[in-house]
Amino acid sequence: MRVDLNSDLGEGFGPWRMGDDDALLDIVTTANIACGFHAGDPQIMRRTIATARRKGAAVGAHPGFYDLIGFGRRRLPGVSAEEIENLIAYQVGAFQAICALAGHPMTHVKTHGALGNMCAEDIELALAVGRGIKAASPGMAFMVMPAAATEQAAAQIGLPVIREVYADRTYDDAFNLTSRSQPGAVIDDPQTAVRQAVRMIRKSEITAASGRTMAARIDSICVHGDSAAALEISRKLRAGLEQAGIRVAPHNAA
Amino acid sequence: MRVDLNSDLGEGFGPWRMGDDDALLDIVTTANIACGFHAGDPQIMRRTIATARRKGAAVGAHPGFYDLIGFGRRRLPGVSAEEIENLIAYQVGAFQAICALAGHPMTHVKTHGALGNMCAEDIELALAVGRGIKAASPGMAFMVMPAAATEQAAAQIGLPVIREVYADRTYDDAFNLTSRSQPGAVIDDPQTAVRQAVRMIRKSEITAASGRTMAARIDSICVHGDSAAALEISRKLRAGLEQAGIRVAPHNAA
Amino acid sequence: MRVDLNSDLGEGFGPWRMGDDDALLDIVTTANIACGFHAGDPQIMRRTIATARRKGAAVGAHPGFYDLIGFGRRRLPGVSAEEIENLIAYQVGAFQAICALAGHPMTHVKTHGALGNMCAEDIELALAVGRGIKAASPGMAFMVMPAAATEQAAAQIGLPVIREVYADRTYDDAFNLTSRSQPGAVIDDPQTAVRQAVRMIRKSEITAASGRTMAARIDSICVHGDSAAALEISRKLRAGLEQAGIRVAPHNAA
Amino acid sequence: MRVDLNSDLGEGFGPWRMGDDDALLDIVTTANIACGFHAGDPQIMRRTIATARRKGAAVGAHPGFYDLIGFGRRRLPGVSAEEIENLIAYQVGAFQAICALAGHPMTHVKTHGALGNMCAEDIELALAVGRGIKAASPGMAFMVMPAAATEQAAAQIGLPVIREVYADRTYDDAFNLTSRSQPGAVIDDPQTAVRQAVRMIRKSEITAASGRTMAARIDSICVHGDSAAALEISRKLRAGLEQAGIRVAPHNAA
Repeated sequence: MRVDLNSDLGEGFGPWRMGDDDALLDIVTTANIACGFHAGDPQIMRRTIATARRKGAAVGAHPGFYDLIGFGRRRLPGVSAEEIENLIAYQVGAFQAICALAGHPMTHVKTHGALGNMCAEDIELALAVGRGIKAASPGMAFMVMPAAATEQAAAQIGLPVIREVYADRTYDDAFNLTSRSQPGAVIDDPQTAVRQAVRMIRKSEITAASGRTMAARIDSICVHGDSAAALEISRKLRAGLEQAGIRVAPHNAA
Repeated sequence: MRVDLNSDLGEGFGPWRMGDDDALLDIVTTANIACGFHAGDPQIMRRTIATARRKGAAVGAHPGFYDLIGFGRRRLPGVSAEEIENLIAYQVGAFQAICALAGHPMTHVKTHGALGNMCAEDIELALAVGRGIKAASPGMAFMVMPAAATEQAAAQIGLPVIREVYADRTYDDAFNLTSRSQPGAVIDDPQTAVRQAVRMIRKSEITAASGRTMAARIDSICVHGDSAAALEISRKLRAGLEQAGIRVAPHNAA
Repeated sequence: MRVDLNSDLGEGFGPWRMGDDDALLDIVTTANIACGFHAGDPQIMRRTIATARRKGAAVGAHPGFYDLIGFGRRRLPGVSAEEIENLIAYQVGAFQAICALAGHPMTHVKTHGALGNMCAEDIELALAVGRGIKAASPGMAFMVMPAAATEQAAAQIGLPVIREVYADRTYDDAFNLTSRSQPGAVIDDPQTAVRQAVRMIRKSEITAASGRTMAARIDSICVHGDSAAALEISRKLRAGLEQAGIRVAPHNAA
Repeated sequence: MRVDLNSDLGEGFGPWRMGDDDALLDIVTTANIACGFHAGDPQIMRRTIATARRKGAAVGAHPGFYDLIGFGRRRLPGVSAEEIENLIAYQVGAFQAICALAGHPMTHVKTHGALGNMCAEDIELALAVGRGIKAASPGMAFMVMPAAATEQAAAQIGLPVIREVYADRTYDDAFNLTSRSQPGAVIDDPQTAVRQAVRMIRKSEITAASGRTMAARIDSICVHGDSAAALEISRKLRAGLEQAGIRVAPHNAA
């Protein structure tokens, strides 16, 4: 049994930094790196990819909406499928070229923030993401949540998928993340988070807060490092997984 | 005898447009398309590439400094070679992916504005451009001015070159463009511009304002369309070349 | 009888221009000038105010959302009243200072695009605009549509209002503009537009497409110049108003 | 004897923060707050002003070049005096309006980064800053370095000045800051920094590294908080000044 740990990195811009990328790269095995639209710039991308390479982590593009001030967290009402194709291809193509400079190949694409939420819910937008990925890098893996529209889009377009779950979030009966506006959406207790993760990996299933389950091959667990607390949970999660006999390794490792 | 005509297109941003791209694409055979840093955005890039495809024009990336308000015309004091590698790879990679979406392959890279000027003068920066191009697209052609540092960099790195001249500008004794701050830098009379262009193509040489000449294979002539007058000169140049028996065709045509 | 004609100007950014400001300033008596968030920059603001001064037009701030690529036309889901207070005060304060440099005083504030639409519908957001205006410039006039939430907010906060109507748009039974997605929303025929404008001014009432009327003091008519056709309608409207004996003059003229 | 301590704050943008503003506001008596061009946005400005008000610190506008990615640290070759007038008036006017919203009046203006450096050296640009300040807020104080072009410009234009020195930097024989590229430019030892500051305040003079002195009324000392070490020096400086019997209070306090 094995699993990948992924986290969003390279989320600075110009003079600004966010989170402790160095510390996170000692914990996670895969980095999703911002591509310049909601965060990130060519210098930060290059440095983050180089650090990931040195620490043995896989790297993927983490494209978002063109919205620095809102950090890509604001939905874009009325965005068209063609706009999404274009902004995905643009960012993934850019990221891939910076990877070539850094000598560390891109392994996947994961959408960020509001773009990710909109595409997880809407198959037309999810297909647009898929076409954008395919244009920039045919055969590139698409990191998705099991049962989301993005998983379905990847299947239709023929992209490999990396299925990710969250250790520190609960799931509703449609196996979407419980909305943060609901009580119990976030799991604050590290031990509960570790137990949920171990169970999901062992059983290859997602358990909703209600107890309902859905079978799902799980390839990766998303963790956060944007606070000291988040970093601590991530560390405990990695230790807990290894104690449970689950190997933590990049999704694409042999 | 044949020559390509190239021009800078897709120089709008969001709601704004610059120049008459449609009219220019009836005259030129190659479009250098802005990549989102000094102008251009993913939607405009996609549409401009699609129009070029429909009209049979070749398309190349036209990367510049990250400077919308200054349109990439302001030099960036102290910019490092690594920063230039990164910004070139980023923009060329992005452009290449949008080309794939539009079904029309990228044929070359030409640097814009102050980035172009700095690289034409400084071999370290020119080499950085070359490495950036090579990372994003190995073997891609680099459009350069004969005798510029960029031509030398392309040779060192092993990139094919497209050598361009200007029909409406005079050259100094180092075969650089006469600075716009000097009298006689710009040729306003269309007939003089046509005569200069025909002579350069026929003789495979560049003639300085002083009469001095330098042998140079010339692949392309750069024209402008940012005013009605510029568009008219471009039209007359194309007609004049054809009347002189010089075939006007994309640089990469068979 | 008299009326002001207003139009949105200074809507370029950096190297880009939009519409023919010079031509419009020969027709309108009031310019609403973009303030740098959705369009406009300090140089363009300064130049546009200076031109308006030379041609005798009043100038007002035309603040919008921070969204250059979308030109402030995209709604911002979840924007808070405090954010709106801040973005209004910021832009109005900036505009007022540039007016001082140009030696031509600001006469009013009119909100742009999606910000304008959201505030016209939502009294909480409209009050936030009012507080932002008052902070930047106590007693400054707020240009509103009769019956919109902005008119109500101005009354509550104690700001003078300038009530504007559109000559080339029809009204629904709530005396809002008919949505552009509905047939008959836009009046393309200049003569019909002129007749509607003359009737609204003469009768001090707004007539909906259904024939329903609402009494309203009308201070200004908004016209456009973003196309040759729009400019032509604006010219005909001014001529038609004057022929009907209605004096066209800035809203604040003696 | 008394002196003000000032520091640059509010230097985040959108989701990003820089430095520990809360901790600094327990040490300094004056905050220079970024105005949205090189850092800062309307929300951050509002919150920083509100915090300064609560902690009893004076607030001033800290305008810079329009350059987020470079944090306003890159010189703008060829910038004109009129451009500087405009960008200063714009930012100072915006800041003043946000101060009105926050109920805490602006007390001064200090230029940031490369804009500050260019204006300190060039009287034409310094005069442009002065005119921009005066347009936005007649009679507003201009924070300057003694002997810089900005001090001379303030005198010519009739703006009050706040003269600031640096505790942790040495001075050359022209009483400019020793360039950071020179050895000994920065004073790392807190005790040395405190001694230099106490001496400058007590004697009303600036001492160059060579021992040369220039008489100068000193109103404020600039400190930094962008690292734990910088914060520690700032704390020790305040304690050292008070131990030496120098009262630390806002420059404008009674």
